[in-house]
Amino acid sequence: MKAEEKTMDKVIALAKGRGFIFPGSEIYGGLANTWDYGPLGVEFKNNVKKAWWKKFVQENKYNVGVDCAILMNPQTWVASGHLAGFSDPLMDCKECHERFRADKIIEDFAAENNITLESSVDGWSQQQMMDFINDNNVPCPSCGKHNFTDIRQFNLMFKTFQGVTEDAKNTVYLRPETAQGIFVNFKNVQRTTRKKLPFGIGQIGKSFRNEITPGNFTFRTREFEQMELEFFCEPGTDLEWYEYWKNFCRDFLVELGMKEDEMRLREHDPEELAFYSKGTTDIEFKFPFGWGELWGIADRTDYDLSQHQTTSAQDLTYFDEEKKERYIPYVIEPSLGADRVALAFLCAAYDEEELEGGDVRTVMHFHPVLAPVKIAVLPISKKLSENAEKVFDQLSKKWNCEYDDRGSIGKRYRRQDEIGTPFCIAYDFDSEEDHCVTIRERDTMKQIEYSEGNVRWPIAELDKFFEEKFAF
Amino acid sequence: MKAEEKTMDKVIALAKGRGFIFPGSEIYGGLANTWDYGPLGVEFKNNVKKAWWKKFVQENKYNVGVDCAILMNPQTWVASGHLAGFSDPLMDCKECHERFRADKIIEDFAAENNITLESSVDGWSQQQMMDFINDNNVPCPSCGKHNFTDIRQFNLMFKTFQGVTEDAKNTVYLRPETAQGIFVNFKNVQRTTRKKLPFGIGQIGKSFRNEITPGNFTFRTREFEQMELEFFCEPGTDLEWYEYWKNFCRDFLVELGMKEDEMRLREHDPEELAFYSKGTTDIEFKFPFGWGELWGIADRTDYDLSQHQTTSAQDLTYFDEEKKERYIPYVIEPSLGADRVALAFLCAAYDEEELEGGDVRTVMHFHPVLAPVKIAVLPISKKLSENAEKVFDQLSKKWNCEYDDRGSIGKRYRRQDEIGTPFCIAYDFDSEEDHCVTIRERDTMKQIEYSEGNVRWPIAELDKFFEEKFAF
Repeated sequence: MKAEEKTMDKVIALAKGRGFIFPGSEIYGGLANTWDYGPLGVEFKNNVKKAWWKKFVQENKYNVGVDCAILMNPQTWVASGHLAGFSDPLMDCKECHERFRADKIIEDFAAENNITLESSVDGWSQQQMMDFINDNNVPCPSCGKHNFTDIRQFNLMFKTFQGVTEDAKNTVYLRPETAQGIFVNFKNVQRTTRKKLPFGIGQIGKSFRNEITPGNFTFRTREFEQMELEFFCEPGTDLEWYEYWKNFCRDFLVELGMKEDEMRLREHDPEELAFYSKGTTDIEFKFPFGWGELWGIADRTDYDLSQHQTTSAQDLTYFDEEKKERYIPYVIEPSLGADRVALAFLCAAYDEEELEGGDVRTVMHFHPVLAPVKIAVLPISKKLSENAEKVFDQLSKKWNCEYDDRGSIGKRYRRQDEIGTPFCIAYDFDSEEDHCVTIRERDTMKQIEYSEGNVRWPIAELDKFFEEKFAF
Repeated sequence: MKAEEKTMDKVIALAKGRGFIFPGSEIYGGLANTWDYGPLGVEFKNNVKKAWWKKFVQENKYNVGVDCAILMNPQTWVASGHLAGFSDPLMDCKECHERFRADKIIEDFAAENNITLESSVDGWSQQQMMDFINDNNVPCPSCGKHNFTDIRQFNLMFKTFQGVTEDAKNTVYLRPETAQGIFVNFKNVQRTTRKKLPFGIGQIGKSFRNEITPGNFTFRTREFEQMELEFFCEPGTDLEWYEYWKNFCRDFLVELGMKEDEMRLREHDPEELAFYSKGTTDIEFKFPFGWGELWGIADRTDYDLSQHQTTSAQDLTYFDEEKKERYIPYVIEPSLGADRVALAFLCAAYDEEELEGGDVRTVMHFHPVLAPVKIAVLPISKKLSENAEKVFDQLSKKWNCEYDDRGSIGKRYRRQDEIGTPFCIAYDFDSEEDHCVTIRERDTMKQIEYSEGNVRWPIAELDKFFEEKFAF
């Protein structure tokens, strides 16, 4: 299909209709922008997470994993700067009582009126924003009047109370990122693994941000899952590793089937960089709604560990045995949103193909490793269920499979196309005699040849065939 | 080792010392009873979760999975009864200002004074508790005086605020159980999978309970992970399925190596049952601190779906095509704590063995499927690293492996024993010539024979050998 015909509405309709993603708490009218992964969605997202873990942790000789608590000691957020600085500048319209992000109002106003801003609004002070809004008489996007309250900073961390009393002493926060769990455990991990630099610590887990304007389906949600790696290295080697991980991350996406023309690397300008960062690159994907960030890869220097060392008064240095030197390691952080990258693969996979005869088939061209259902077992007749189920049982020991005996075989193929199942096995009456089946491939819609001119596959050889197909 | 010598202190010391489990936010003095899984712990716990998912979702022809948001529409908790009833009865001592759970004070007082309570305190009203405490002049466990405040109910749900304003309208809760995400999606899942009864929906995810007295390491924590299945069936068939799932759950634990004498099934007495439940069984494990609940298996009848149907005013009935009848399915719920069952396997695995010569080795007898490191590759000399690393690379494509070239081979075996690695591969100078290695087995400490009298294994045949060893 043409790129411009691929809309979010179509992707969302398929996601909801086939059980990838449902609106959260739907029977109660939902809850803001929360989403629940359905039977196919959970397998699909798990496949994304498993692929990341395999390449970034299991197989990688430098890295190990952790899984830290969502609730952390609040001093963590003092050290990380989230308590003081992780906030959005909000203002209300006194006329219509709508609430806005001041930086968004300015950006939108500038874009509409072709005003070139000297620098990214991200870096502006509150006063600068207020001045711009007043100097330009910026109107309320909702009612058009110009009568705003002052800007106030709204912290994006969700807060809750641990224990019985709801007071400051008992206030804790839902982590806004998984990274800090890694930093506070740097010493524990280094001590117990006896790792030498360079080494990395990866983590997959939920984070929470009280976004004012969540949206674009699962792209920006208040509750989301991250896959973060903190890679610790010797100062001076950091820029090399920064390049290394940029390439590694891009290659990971390409290996899973992301096309080069749907992604781009955007290096941050010096004025966009956090003051401690020596370099930051976003890997962006071309969603139907526009380019969106998937992966942030940053050289964060020794900022995080230094902050924690100061705040905790614990020694977080590393002793370099070769150099007989003690220093705080530098860190490269590739930080990826699991829901976002899953959404990207969902959008990338979506296709409507016009077939011979004018029919249109909807097909999800997932990489076999990501496909939620790997193999569908389809008996030609319900009479064949006894032995067809045995094929299903055999294969589902290793892969997530579906068994479907309802409707014509053509309709069943279409259903599997729509959920991106790479292979369909047809079990027919001959199978009872020759213990063979046919394997239909999703993308070509052709039966795969076992030998030249012969499409019948011995059931005993299926495991080996699929082992190779799903290797990653 | 003798059962009485196996203490929690020993298990915790190993867990912390070897990187299974660290105190959460440790550099800041921790945060109540939170815990972070280290490099070995995350692999270990992931293995527990993967085993559950495989047997309860992937391979099971009845069941599918979901992954729902932690933040849900608050009406969910109205329907489930958590807003009204999920609370602990708390009271303060007016003399020493300590705070207690009234039911705990009564239970402890009764136990100490050999008073037989007519029924479980769980079922008592607030007035009954107050009367007992006054009638028996129950003293404060802390200061010994008898001068308590009234009992008040403290809701165990963590609350937070979504959006900018901290008011009732924006109050949301961290889910206290994953089950409700399944119930609110019952229709969505049934519609998109076209499943007929009986079928189940499984979920793994974090839940949060603001426990007054968390403790016993990871046994009772405020933040914890659950593995829940809600199995929907026709009313009247429920008691059969209740038996089925009780057996299925017990078999699952046994298959993963849990010993029959370390576990017991405890059927709840009629007066202990929730009013809607037709039967509840706890599977308990004998922890070093005593028997503790791992798994609750309950026949919940149509209570949950009925509650949601009433509260949401949505039709949650199922149309039985064979019987041409419409009804609300009954549900069997096997609900398991992931951290708890992981802790049980950790405790069960721990052993100290006296060896010939009087040495003691600490060894974790994990089932191979649960072991965090499956295979350790140990070159006899650092000179052999080039080809030994190739063996590591080959195996770590499929399994989580460790490469260790530091210290004597004996010490390295001991380190692997202590983290429960089932197999150690020694790569020696002969390996360079014969492309063979030896495989040392953890429990027997013997080298495994390739053929009679020959312990050298061709490297090319390792994959096949381990495939069989780690099949599950």
